[in-house]
Amino acid sequence: MSDKIITISRQFGSGGRTVARKAADMLGIPCYDREIIQQIAEKSGFAEDYVSEQSEYMDDGGFFGSLGMYGPTTRIAIWTEQCQIIKDLADKGPCIIVGRCADYVLKEYHEDLLKCFIYADMESRAHRIVSQYGESPEKPEKRLKDKDKRRAAYYEIYTDQDFGDPVNYDLCLNTGTLGIDACAEIITQVYKNQD
Amino acid sequence: MSDKIITISRQFGSGGRTVARKAADMLGIPCYDREIIQQIAEKSGFAEDYVSEQSEYMDDGGFFGSLGMYGPTTRIAIWTEQCQIIKDLADKGPCIIVGRCADYVLKEYHEDLLKCFIYADMESRAHRIVSQYGESPEKPEKRLKDKDKRRAAYYEIYTDQDFGDPVNYDLCLNTGTLGIDACAEIITQVYKNQD
Repeated sequence: MSDKIITISRQFGSGGRTVARKAADMLGIPCYDREIIQQIAEKSGFAEDYVSEQSEYMDDGGFFGSLGMYGPTTRIAIWTEQCQIIKDLADKGPCIIVGRCADYVLKEYHEDLLKCFIYADMESRAHRIVSQYGESPEKPEKRLKDKDKRRAAYYEIYTDQDFGDPVNYDLCLNTGTLGIDACAEIITQVYKNQD
Repeated sequence: MSDKIITISRQFGSGGRTVARKAADMLGIPCYDREIIQQIAEKSGFAEDYVSEQSEYMDDGGFFGSLGMYGPTTRIAIWTEQCQIIKDLADKGPCIIVGRCADYVLKEYHEDLLKCFIYADMESRAHRIVSQYGESPEKPEKRLKDKDKRRAAYYEIYTDQDFGDPVNYDLCLNTGTLGIDACAEIITQVYKNQD
């Protein structure tokens, strides 16, 4: 492999973003996460928070939900922009791309992709979003389930695949039992060994 | 961890058994697979082939299917024997146990378990069962889907968990993209690093 790209899909609260950054640091390659949101926001004119939500979560009303300006046309425009930005980043050279269906968007890169899914048990994720992300300790499991549902719906609509189904990935790692550092280390090793 | 046990759940045709044996060889620990069937057969008096089928696959008729001697009582007897044998093997020291819901049976070992799920895309598995297992090249995907369905039904009835759902495992590895040797190597490294 010459230009190898790592994609990190992750459950909310699993620490997947941290795993991605640590692996990128160890490998000395860039990690793209918030940068993708910023680029979409710049090019589309929408606020970053809006883009962040629309580029990974389905609204309660679904793809065709009647939400005024948040209709299907806007969603398709953001998706199209997102796909182009992800491909442009991948074309720049080795990197890690977090979320945003990059595993699917880059499917034509095939042999040069290492597709990872980062997840954890509900208890570890609830603990993480309260202790690390500063979320309310009031029923965090309920919010996680809601996030899971909307993220899965988004992924399924745009990719026609099931979010979190192992067959979409090369390796799936449980941060709840293995730990964040160990997961970053495994990805780093697999990446290096496949050179 | 002192007595660390690796459990390998695997999709039929993914090469999970080979991954298990290679990892066991590299780690210098025993790998239990067919031995479990043999022990159940010896203790229960049933034929090995029958035990092999009944200890991992649900009949088409389901748990309460009316199949004469193959009824629920026999199934429970085999399951009970299987649980005891798996626990006894785990108590003997570090080892790898292939299939048979060992990840669930040994759940009380918790901290000392490394639970792996080995899978692959349908095309790789179809190629494998025809070229390596000598199965008929006639519609291998159909047989794989049937095996998947019956193995998942068995796992779900006995464990109340979804077969292949990443959250039941510490790591899930795709032999179709990573290759058999790389998967054995990853398991070996994770096992060693968690010592």
